[in-house]
Amino acid sequence: MQNILSKTFSTLALESPTAGVLMVRLNRPNRLNAISTQMWSDLKNCFNAIKTDGNVRSVVISSNGKLFCSGIDLKDSTLSAPQSDKDIARKGYYHRLSILELQESISAIEQCDKPVICAINNGCIGAGVDLATACDIRYCTQDAYFIVKEVDIGMAADVGTLQRLPKVVANDSWVREICYTAKKVYAEEAKTFGLVSSVFDTKESLEVNALNTATLIASKSPVAIVSTKHLLNYSRDHTVAEGLAYNALWNTLMHNTADMPEAITSFFAKKSPSFAKL
Amino acid sequence: MQNILSKTFSTLALESPTAGVLMVRLNRPNRLNAISTQMWSDLKNCFNAIKTDGNVRSVVISSNGKLFCSGIDLKDSTLSAPQSDKDIARKGYYHRLSILELQESISAIEQCDKPVICAINNGCIGAGVDLATACDIRYCTQDAYFIVKEVDIGMAADVGTLQRLPKVVANDSWVREICYTAKKVYAEEAKTFGLVSSVFDTKESLEVNALNTATLIASKSPVAIVSTKHLLNYSRDHTVAEGLAYNALWNTLMHNTADMPEAITSFFAKKSPSFAKL
Amino acid sequence: MQNILSKTFSTLALESPTAGVLMVRLNRPNRLNAISTQMWSDLKNCFNAIKTDGNVRSVVISSNGKLFCSGIDLKDSTLSAPQSDKDIARKGYYHRLSILELQESISAIEQCDKPVICAINNGCIGAGVDLATACDIRYCTQDAYFIVKEVDIGMAADVGTLQRLPKVVANDSWVREICYTAKKVYAEEAKTFGLVSSVFDTKESLEVNALNTATLIASKSPVAIVSTKHLLNYSRDHTVAEGLAYNALWNTLMHNTADMPEAITSFFAKKSPSFAKL
Amino acid sequence: MQNILSKTFSTLALESPTAGVLMVRLNRPNRLNAISTQMWSDLKNCFNAIKTDGNVRSVVISSNGKLFCSGIDLKDSTLSAPQSDKDIARKGYYHRLSILELQESISAIEQCDKPVICAINNGCIGAGVDLATACDIRYCTQDAYFIVKEVDIGMAADVGTLQRLPKVVANDSWVREICYTAKKVYAEEAKTFGLVSSVFDTKESLEVNALNTATLIASKSPVAIVSTKHLLNYSRDHTVAEGLAYNALWNTLMHNTADMPEAITSFFAKKSPSFAKL
Amino acid sequence: MQNILSKTFSTLALESPTAGVLMVRLNRPNRLNAISTQMWSDLKNCFNAIKTDGNVRSVVISSNGKLFCSGIDLKDSTLSAPQSDKDIARKGYYHRLSILELQESISAIEQCDKPVICAINNGCIGAGVDLATACDIRYCTQDAYFIVKEVDIGMAADVGTLQRLPKVVANDSWVREICYTAKKVYAEEAKTFGLVSSVFDTKESLEVNALNTATLIASKSPVAIVSTKHLLNYSRDHTVAEGLAYNALWNTLMHNTADMPEAITSFFAKKSPSFAKL
Amino acid sequence: MQNILSKTFSTLALESPTAGVLMVRLNRPNRLNAISTQMWSDLKNCFNAIKTDGNVRSVVISSNGKLFCSGIDLKDSTLSAPQSDKDIARKGYYHRLSILELQESISAIEQCDKPVICAINNGCIGAGVDLATACDIRYCTQDAYFIVKEVDIGMAADVGTLQRLPKVVANDSWVREICYTAKKVYAEEAKTFGLVSSVFDTKESLEVNALNTATLIASKSPVAIVSTKHLLNYSRDHTVAEGLAYNALWNTLMHNTADMPEAITSFFAKKSPSFAKL
Repeated sequence: MQNILSKTFSTLALESPTAGVLMVRLNRPNRLNAISTQMWSDLKNCFNAIKTDGNVRSVVISSNGKLFCSGIDLKDSTLSAPQSDKDIARKGYYHRLSILELQESISAIEQCDKPVICAINNGCIGAGVDLATACDIRYCTQDAYFIVKEVDIGMAADVGTLQRLPKVVANDSWVREICYTAKKVYAEEAKTFGLVSSVFDTKESLEVNALNTATLIASKSPVAIVSTKHLLNYSRDHTVAEGLAYNALWNTLMHNTADMPEAITSFFAKKSPSFAKL
Repeated sequence: MQNILSKTFSTLALESPTAGVLMVRLNRPNRLNAISTQMWSDLKNCFNAIKTDGNVRSVVISSNGKLFCSGIDLKDSTLSAPQSDKDIARKGYYHRLSILELQESISAIEQCDKPVICAINNGCIGAGVDLATACDIRYCTQDAYFIVKEVDIGMAADVGTLQRLPKVVANDSWVREICYTAKKVYAEEAKTFGLVSSVFDTKESLEVNALNTATLIASKSPVAIVSTKHLLNYSRDHTVAEGLAYNALWNTLMHNTADMPEAITSFFAKKSPSFAKL
Repeated sequence: MQNILSKTFSTLALESPTAGVLMVRLNRPNRLNAISTQMWSDLKNCFNAIKTDGNVRSVVISSNGKLFCSGIDLKDSTLSAPQSDKDIARKGYYHRLSILELQESISAIEQCDKPVICAINNGCIGAGVDLATACDIRYCTQDAYFIVKEVDIGMAADVGTLQRLPKVVANDSWVREICYTAKKVYAEEAKTFGLVSSVFDTKESLEVNALNTATLIASKSPVAIVSTKHLLNYSRDHTVAEGLAYNALWNTLMHNTADMPEAITSFFAKKSPSFAKL
Repeated sequence: MQNILSKTFSTLALESPTAGVLMVRLNRPNRLNAISTQMWSDLKNCFNAIKTDGNVRSVVISSNGKLFCSGIDLKDSTLSAPQSDKDIARKGYYHRLSILELQESISAIEQCDKPVICAINNGCIGAGVDLATACDIRYCTQDAYFIVKEVDIGMAADVGTLQRLPKVVANDSWVREICYTAKKVYAEEAKTFGLVSSVFDTKESLEVNALNTATLIASKSPVAIVSTKHLLNYSRDHTVAEGLAYNALWNTLMHNTADMPEAITSFFAKKSPSFAKL
Repeated sequence: MQNILSKTFSTLALESPTAGVLMVRLNRPNRLNAISTQMWSDLKNCFNAIKTDGNVRSVVISSNGKLFCSGIDLKDSTLSAPQSDKDIARKGYYHRLSILELQESISAIEQCDKPVICAINNGCIGAGVDLATACDIRYCTQDAYFIVKEVDIGMAADVGTLQRLPKVVANDSWVREICYTAKKVYAEEAKTFGLVSSVFDTKESLEVNALNTATLIASKSPVAIVSTKHLLNYSRDHTVAEGLAYNALWNTLMHNTADMPEAITSFFAKKSPSFAKL
Repeated sequence: MQNILSKTFSTLALESPTAGVLMVRLNRPNRLNAISTQMWSDLKNCFNAIKTDGNVRSVVISSNGKLFCSGIDLKDSTLSAPQSDKDIARKGYYHRLSILELQESISAIEQCDKPVICAINNGCIGAGVDLATACDIRYCTQDAYFIVKEVDIGMAADVGTLQRLPKVVANDSWVREICYTAKKVYAEEAKTFGLVSSVFDTKESLEVNALNTATLIASKSPVAIVSTKHLLNYSRDHTVAEGLAYNALWNTLMHNTADMPEAITSFFAKKSPSFAKL
């Protein structure tokens, strides 16, 4: 439960612009924020640390440089089958484990329990879409574009887009069209079909608005917030009946929080509540 | 299978404006239709009775008073952990059962097999959203607004919103934004993102249109209608393959209805079919 | 793995307008493309053959005649309970198997692994909607309309609409409204709510655009394309975690393709890649 | 949370032979304990009351009269399709609900959270097997026999045997043999194949031993006991991974019990712990 | 619904020794009943036909020649990866389909809805175990032995043993031991651990007893019997709650059978019931 | 993929008595092999390393000292709710994570893909049973005993026993009896009910036999062995149909191994096959 700001990640730039809010910037501008072996590892370690750092109540992911993320770094990846003198089956045994490991980096965002707002400017390509769809909220700039690029390198996406994209947007016909054609989707189309919920003129206003939302979230009861994220994720993957049963058990525990009397008392007293960190 | 209109519920006002259509109005106008212990109980009993009352073919839920529903009645609820001298675990054992009981009240709407149209005017707050998302169809007035209010009392929603809201609307980024921030969502935004399917100018036109749709549904074969609702609910919570298998079995039974020859004969004879009640 | 163009189906017209693209036209114009016993059988055989025909990389379903599909052919169907002197249970045993068989015809489209674009002009009624929602991508003409017609013949839909429609569109309130009322939905409304992703002025421009998309898909790596369709379908019916695990295993196998080095080399050499058929 | 001993059930005889232990005896000896409409209702009400009665820590089900249970009372049942002038589909709609209601009576035993020991003497037939397999522990007398009788009245079992029997015993070949043939299974065979865990000479020793086990269970921490039953049931119906996740959440709540320090302190002090009722 | 005895299968010998009972004998004695490409196909066609042949009420699978089944015919199989000049991914696409096809042959036994008794004499090796575990009831001779042979040819079993064996027997430690070691399991051990339910001295008494059980099953209501098999299979793969719900719906349909009044009337009249074929 | 023998674990003693076989001994004899914080961590790290160490083909878990495992070390555990000034909800948030972490240590055994034989001498108590049931094969000495001890410290088991025990043994009545009563189960009873598959006279013969089985497994194709374990685990937690589909895909990949031709060629040449390490 060490404060995450005390850690350093070579491919990520971290800061805390307002209390409880962590800004994580993809930070390989010279490589167009392509995700390298190091960045896969940094993402996992960073979001695993966020999960248990009570100082962090909400997160914004943005980027340094010209565009948000140009996808996997083809010059530094394990995507293609590994070279060795083992047979295909043996190589496959280990290669599958390495794909699962990349998936864990993306899933760490989903599993960190703190809401994550993805602020996308300019390009969001390939693995960038996998990353963005694992976040809770997606905002982008007017000049943003999205490409589910994987078919153009001869493969199906495999670190989350095919699982999460159809569950975050509205129109399955459109989802499949962009997955099969790798076509460029611009900001307005992304908003119309539900890939983002807001579009802003400039990168600056994008970040300001993302931070405002993050700050608003950080002002709420952290018990209520992590519960809400945890339960939305659980319920997405279960029937309504199973979601309700788990939700009831979870809340039975979490109703033992000082935040509820604080919130209710403040409401009747018409003053702002104050919540301890998680 | 007693006619439901012969029953009285102290927090609900019932009438049958057209044959086969039941209008249920939340009826605590002085408390802004906040859901009290009595109303939780009335909702469950009312919708359980609707399930087996063959006279009811479709339902509209509306409200008496200024707004649709102001959420749970904080002055009359079991939401906060119960006070007793038992230890946390023992209290939790019973508290969990009481949350499950509230959930049953909302789920009774989903499980009553008759289509339920929710006609929302003005505010729909907290537990009101849980209730609305358990209905089949949502209409609202131009002045309507929705607030997923629970985080503002220090807790996660736990009687259905986190399970059903993401399954009834289009844009997961927006769902999470309104759940984490408790922000006010107005009618047009609700329609754009799929929370309602129609917006009407006044409460009067809202109710007229909701009743028109309900009356249209009530004119259809009741076997076909309850089957369609039952199967939509089943299929939402199962894979396509499982949904198809169950659907085939269900229809094997229900094809033994007089409604099919009546409908087909009427179609070829170009006359209106007439269907017995369920 | 015989070339499908060497086969003949009496209710379907097949051609290959561009390399790798198969055009399948519903071909009972005199019966308004109502689906007869023969057409159920032809659809199944056709799409099962497409699955193992390496020459086919993408498919367009369109129609000959005035409208796309008028639904099941009531004069030639097994929908109503079969007549025999067996008891209801015994008849039911066999009737259920015949519904399952119709379902297989529609599901064959979903399971053929090649993307299928549905080009809908004018009417798309009843079983036509079941068929359309089993396709990957839906385009329609400006004059198109959709009717979930089944309640009007006294039954619930049972060959796919109730399973797939809520998973391909955005607004559950709207889905239920059109399923309960059998109301006519026009092209623009269909696009707004996500049932189609593009609307075109004429049947001609509809087919041109559907073929363009199909041709674009056919130019991609067939390993990547069938993998993407297979994995989108698998992931729709599983949790995110299960979808990821299956995706990792599938890609471990499929990364052993010559298409990946071909695609990557071509990308860096700025030339068009060339992929062998599946 | 009224004490269950204050209630009366016309078909069940209740007593509490030792503190925390409830003995429930099927009490229609003149009808060989056949399950009548009244007994279905009494079983549900009895076990629902047990769930919230903190005085009950474990239960023994035995019987008055010559044999344990002769199955459903054919002269007083709703098993055959109901007579009315409705069509088969409409009758089916309500008949299905009545089967679900019978199932709830049996499932109430499983869901009451207190361990239930079934003490079977002499015959256990048809619905008696459904009831027995919903209990936690099964003991029987040397002269006991079991018959999965349903096929002999022209139907498949439908209140639990087909779901639970294969999950409580060892040998699927044997399960299917007794379900398809309705053959009589004697005590030793029942023990060999896992249907019971102990066989006793007489009804008296059967009840003594069942009560001993129940008394032993009643001496344990009630938080630990209801948790164990609840979690065994949950885990039976979920994957190992899902079972573990739910178990962790449940125990997080239940570790807040005074029973744990009491148990551990007593252990180190080598004295008997004393636990408050639930 | 053609009578299956009018069909001929080159690798299977069929006869009907008693009314309603079909004896299917594996019939490649010169190849020790190894399963060839033709036999895979014959098994699927045979059991698919059994499903819809009302004359067949129960089935015995036995064999001609020295032993029951020596496993897959290595000289005539598609088990090893196919030879072609396609890349590993493309070959894999089709190879996977061919494994799925073999699986369908075995699963056809499970899905034929009529109880199948497997009568095993002498060796039952490799694919023979996959076949045996897909049957309902397993009997064997004193000299029988079983080998889960697949690891000895460098692969994991893939047509059913790894799925079904742990679900039909008692002791997971033993299951894994025989799957990892390919050790020979003799009749008594097979009975102790639940792989068979009866052992007989000779092949002759094995077949007599298998036929007796089959004849007994064939004397029961065929509606009750196919329902019981269908529901046991469904319930094995679902939670208890889901199994109960499906069972209730299935029985609602099947209670409309003449077999129930026939059975009940005969019972009270103390005469043998007589049931029409399915 | 570092050789695990180069690592040191303070609470585990490792050696490789025969090629490919790893012996892991619980090594806190002075604390009766109670599982301390360090041992939880060592178990996870050890079995995670085994997963990717191609030199290890099978594992035996045994123990140094008087008994196998006395359960969790109560003097060094996080089982009781942590002490801090946070509220119950906040403490619960972190406490749940710590239970999940203990579960991972046990599940690492299940997920390491190499068969693990548990050799139990004398006592196997509490968490020792969780550990043993996560192994593939269980052998014990004549003097062994098992206690599901958790209820005796006022809690339900939560690191695996309640999930896995019912799936590895035969008789659910017995499972629940030992879980509710914490009664001592001796070796012969453990074998009768399926908790172990073999009982040996002495610890020495126990270890010799466990090593013999492990050595036999290590002589098989490692591709076949890890596949078999992986697929048995997957299939336990899925329907038969899902297990078959995953198995087909897995084997499509793994059939690309040199082990299959090596095994088949050796078989026909009647010589021992030789397999490369994984």
